[in-house]
Amino acid sequence: MKKLEVGILGATGMVGQRFVSLIEHHPWFEVAWLGASEKSAGRNYAEACNWRLREPMPEKARAMQVHECDPGAHPGKLPQLMFASLDSKVAGEVEKAFARAGHVVVSNSGTHRMDEDVPLVIPEVNPDHLALLRGQQRERKWKGMIVTNPNCTTVGLVMSLAPLERAFGLDKVMMTSMQAVSGAGYPGIPTLDIMGNVIPFIGGEEEKVECETCKLLGKLTEGRVQPGAFIVSAHCNRVPVEDGHTESISVSLKSKASLLDLERVWRTFRALPQERDLPSAPKHPIVVREERDRPQPKFDLMTEGGMATVIGRVRACPVLQFKYTALSHNTIRGAAGAALLNAELMKSEGYLD
Amino acid sequence: MKKLEVGILGATGMVGQRFVSLIEHHPWFEVAWLGASEKSAGRNYAEACNWRLREPMPEKARAMQVHECDPGAHPGKLPQLMFASLDSKVAGEVEKAFARAGHVVVSNSGTHRMDEDVPLVIPEVNPDHLALLRGQQRERKWKGMIVTNPNCTTVGLVMSLAPLERAFGLDKVMMTSMQAVSGAGYPGIPTLDIMGNVIPFIGGEEEKVECETCKLLGKLTEGRVQPGAFIVSAHCNRVPVEDGHTESISVSLKSKASLLDLERVWRTFRALPQERDLPSAPKHPIVVREERDRPQPKFDLMTEGGMATVIGRVRACPVLQFKYTALSHNTIRGAAGAALLNAELMKSEGYLD
Amino acid sequence: MKKLEVGILGATGMVGQRFVSLIEHHPWFEVAWLGASEKSAGRNYAEACNWRLREPMPEKARAMQVHECDPGAHPGKLPQLMFASLDSKVAGEVEKAFARAGHVVVSNSGTHRMDEDVPLVIPEVNPDHLALLRGQQRERKWKGMIVTNPNCTTVGLVMSLAPLERAFGLDKVMMTSMQAVSGAGYPGIPTLDIMGNVIPFIGGEEEKVECETCKLLGKLTEGRVQPGAFIVSAHCNRVPVEDGHTESISVSLKSKASLLDLERVWRTFRALPQERDLPSAPKHPIVVREERDRPQPKFDLMTEGGMATVIGRVRACPVLQFKYTALSHNTIRGAAGAALLNAELMKSEGYLD
Amino acid sequence: MKKLEVGILGATGMVGQRFVSLIEHHPWFEVAWLGASEKSAGRNYAEACNWRLREPMPEKARAMQVHECDPGAHPGKLPQLMFASLDSKVAGEVEKAFARAGHVVVSNSGTHRMDEDVPLVIPEVNPDHLALLRGQQRERKWKGMIVTNPNCTTVGLVMSLAPLERAFGLDKVMMTSMQAVSGAGYPGIPTLDIMGNVIPFIGGEEEKVECETCKLLGKLTEGRVQPGAFIVSAHCNRVPVEDGHTESISVSLKSKASLLDLERVWRTFRALPQERDLPSAPKHPIVVREERDRPQPKFDLMTEGGMATVIGRVRACPVLQFKYTALSHNTIRGAAGAALLNAELMKSEGYLD
Repeated sequence: MKKLEVGILGATGMVGQRFVSLIEHHPWFEVAWLGASEKSAGRNYAEACNWRLREPMPEKARAMQVHECDPGAHPGKLPQLMFASLDSKVAGEVEKAFARAGHVVVSNSGTHRMDEDVPLVIPEVNPDHLALLRGQQRERKWKGMIVTNPNCTTVGLVMSLAPLERAFGLDKVMMTSMQAVSGAGYPGIPTLDIMGNVIPFIGGEEEKVECETCKLLGKLTEGRVQPGAFIVSAHCNRVPVEDGHTESISVSLKSKASLLDLERVWRTFRALPQERDLPSAPKHPIVVREERDRPQPKFDLMTEGGMATVIGRVRACPVLQFKYTALSHNTIRGAAGAALLNAELMKSEGYLD
Repeated sequence: MKKLEVGILGATGMVGQRFVSLIEHHPWFEVAWLGASEKSAGRNYAEACNWRLREPMPEKARAMQVHECDPGAHPGKLPQLMFASLDSKVAGEVEKAFARAGHVVVSNSGTHRMDEDVPLVIPEVNPDHLALLRGQQRERKWKGMIVTNPNCTTVGLVMSLAPLERAFGLDKVMMTSMQAVSGAGYPGIPTLDIMGNVIPFIGGEEEKVECETCKLLGKLTEGRVQPGAFIVSAHCNRVPVEDGHTESISVSLKSKASLLDLERVWRTFRALPQERDLPSAPKHPIVVREERDRPQPKFDLMTEGGMATVIGRVRACPVLQFKYTALSHNTIRGAAGAALLNAELMKSEGYLD
Repeated sequence: MKKLEVGILGATGMVGQRFVSLIEHHPWFEVAWLGASEKSAGRNYAEACNWRLREPMPEKARAMQVHECDPGAHPGKLPQLMFASLDSKVAGEVEKAFARAGHVVVSNSGTHRMDEDVPLVIPEVNPDHLALLRGQQRERKWKGMIVTNPNCTTVGLVMSLAPLERAFGLDKVMMTSMQAVSGAGYPGIPTLDIMGNVIPFIGGEEEKVECETCKLLGKLTEGRVQPGAFIVSAHCNRVPVEDGHTESISVSLKSKASLLDLERVWRTFRALPQERDLPSAPKHPIVVREERDRPQPKFDLMTEGGMATVIGRVRACPVLQFKYTALSHNTIRGAAGAALLNAELMKSEGYLD
Repeated sequence: MKKLEVGILGATGMVGQRFVSLIEHHPWFEVAWLGASEKSAGRNYAEACNWRLREPMPEKARAMQVHECDPGAHPGKLPQLMFASLDSKVAGEVEKAFARAGHVVVSNSGTHRMDEDVPLVIPEVNPDHLALLRGQQRERKWKGMIVTNPNCTTVGLVMSLAPLERAFGLDKVMMTSMQAVSGAGYPGIPTLDIMGNVIPFIGGEEEKVECETCKLLGKLTEGRVQPGAFIVSAHCNRVPVEDGHTESISVSLKSKASLLDLERVWRTFRALPQERDLPSAPKHPIVVREERDRPQPKFDLMTEGGMATVIGRVRACPVLQFKYTALSHNTIRGAAGAALLNAELMKSEGYLD
């Protein structure tokens, strides 16, 4: 089978690097086009990119040329599928330009996530929300389309909530995050700010978590997403960890459940990506650990290649009903891997034919 | 004025070192006796103690002999006032032995905190609970007594809650901590466990926070403490920070209040230690910061010499009513400084005459 | 081909865990016996071992029983080949007991390294030193034998020096190390000692580096190792890095050489393990990087599975002749991987038949 | 005595902040004028400056206006004495403009350090080099002047070498540094680059150490500095430490000396700043520690207010003659404190009358 050629908008950033790395051995996709800022355009990727992943830059990518992110500036044919991880200052316009020009933009940017006609999708949670795309194309008169994945902090939370919402109905959710520095990109957070420190604020993050969670767990009715009927409160903190967002979560549910019920619905949670055996789908989207001091970023980050959400310390909460800790990889499941799985879902649904 | 001689039980540990350091220039007290484990007994303090504070060991302490923690093993007269920061394995028996032998034991250990007849005291919050001592001495037939201060994580939480409880009544409290490694003593946490990591578990800590908070904010009626009529839930995490526990807190109150009301009661909070100008009392027990990203351990830890609780990010909580971040120094306000202020309170109340 | 069964003395320690992990998929060896301290004996490995590697404990090892390290205490037949990474307090006697009882002890411990009749071997550097074993067995009247690998700091230095010694003759060597905390085992270094700090002292380390380097690069003549005729000076420091010892090295040589000559002999360096294609042998034992700021532990540690020494910043030294930076993985190439490669060499030489 | 008003060029940077903080309680100087980049000009200091020191911003500085660094753009009279810690891209021209306009520029920048007619001064080491200023003013036709202090890595090295050079004559010096991140300013080093890592390269640093050391220890003859007649080789590394450069140093000397001789000349080292009791002069410019594992940044950084160089681990070196570890505070003794002491020296010499 010939692989589908894909492009990356924002290929030199931290998430762009993850795209390049994750797609290197992908069975369906191959990177054929790299876009970045003007400063990088015209240079090859090895020169243009300050590679910050521990695994080496894929040999093939090194010599690829980096282009400007302008769909009209290229005489040849660009790939239909474009993964996007652009700086938020430019993401909005560039993504729209590519969608207008007929590209399927699978974006990790926050800009369009909350647009009414833009699907915000986790394939295990709300694959049906892709149906918003019909309206999006019709109303915006686009040949292409934009699909988004959630913020890196939202993903782990929603992965843990989705089975609870389905089985018992969510009532209230309280989440305090301890977020890794890679979530802020590169150069990102100065060492002098975070070494040996905690920063109890991340601009816009709490709002994102609170809104996105309700949209992701919302119901699609009459071509619109009806947000989930529950309340979310987020406290977001930055801690001196390289990768992996850890979250202390308390929930109350609409119907009665026991601690064992929670563990059971998490352990048995399987969804469309698992049924269809999508290449980036974790076998177990949720892994529950028994040890009293897990999950920990150091040991659990790469569970299922960084695509699982790892849950532990499930216990009763005196204020709400249950409390637990969840961990997920912020630049894999929370960014590049999330977009990749979205594209795989779209391919399996026929959006990329 | 001649200073009152005091002893330290557990003088070589992390909290013991803080006692030695904080008392060095104390206007009322001076260290006259050092007790530690058998292994240390007989050596001088400079040899016996692996000093881990950034400030140098006080010159006077260096040459002092370290003794066994046995009130009967000493021919000479031991100081009446004993600060105690013993290992939890021995704290219970040793403290009782000293209290039985007539000493005033001001303890930082968790062992007796929840004993019905042992005052668990924050001088700004519940100085009246010292009245439990009458019953303690009568029932236990002790000439001496034991007074305790709360766990290092409880202190910052309760400092922030006390003015709210008084002004509006507490209903529900949710707290997620990000705790410093010095809270685990020395050698404490291996580097390989915490460097670049988060550990979402601290043995017994959540239970301590939940119980102690209710006792501290409880009412003394008929010689007993009636626990506070509110619910507390704690998530405790360890993060790679040297000193300073940061806490993400949500609360709901019994009577109506605005964000401004909260800030006002915090800013204006003064209590007995401030009125009596006790030597270790912070001028402002609670400092509210306006910046959107404070408090942070790096910058706010030593506010008021490490005796203030620093609050920031006061905002509405969608699940409970309000959320905010609080920071306090875990080995000063949360341990040695707490005991010191308790002893100052007791002296000002006549317990040390 | 049936795999050779091996045992591990000190299986629950940091290096023991590396042995278990590295041998999991080894083509020649399989772990059949685990030995540790009395405290662990009788429990299964999953219980006895506080697993600290990022990769999960191999499933097969979890249920294996842990035994006492006493060759006489076991009715059944123990494996002939024993990897040893015991605490230095007991290593000496236990290793001798196993050698006496007929085992081939391939040890990472420092105890016997400098014994005249014990080979201290890096397979790429001095495989011929194994010939010392004849004398060892004869004089000590052992049926078994003890072979050792160097200290974790010595390995990277000697890997970089060996090609220079051969090609140009070494004259003087100055090495300053920045060593990772995993080199101190577990629990090892308390967080409060090293977080945000440098410790300019590691007990016995400088002496080891200075002596072992001369023995490793010495000549075997008349059954004895004549130490290398050059001078080594070491400064050893601990830094807050998890894995990977970085070394700033200056050298002067006996014959004339240029910077390009050095790079050439490093890049073309191949030896017995590469010729025989031993399973743990790196294809390129030395990797030279061109970037001006490499090698770095974060990016270069796992080069060739952690078995290569990575060299960079090769330049003239005003005091000696050349200076460069070398990095190697202290618990793989510097410990468990070193012993494993020694055992592979010995098997290929017929010592394990 | 009325304090002398001073200005700070580059007041919002890391070293600028140190100037503001160190001068707050200075007995001779007070900050009267703050200069920074265009972006900051016109705002008050509290707004313009992202304060990164642990101690709070001095109250008086908060409301001060920040100005452009242009000596002609100000109608009122600027202070004669200007401390300069400008970005290296602009330092050269701005400093010259101020010197031309009559200001005494006491600079921490590297730009003019190696200019033949610019004194590079450590007051304890070569106060006589100030005599270069006569030629500087004459040749450049300046009413003002420029004086510089060394690079943050050079200072600790030269402080330790100066007494050896005087007593025994230096022959060869080898230095490997482990440098703190604050040396790179703010935002400086991205967390993703240095957390848990070592970077074995700092642009231009080794050259600076090698050249500046020879100039500082050179002799002033016929109006020129004759560089010291010895050889220096530097390896410079960055490590995850906030403040404090640690250096592993080996030296050989021209005349015979013992380890005790070295310790003696260090311990008894006093110079002009101590004789004149200059306000920022450490009582003991060099502190020798006996413990086998000191100095360490965590414990020894603030010795003598961060103005001492702390030496330890003095021992024989097999390659050169002696080896030891030296530590000094890179933004106090290595930057703002160095310039401050230079200005105090100049005042005591009559250059500021």
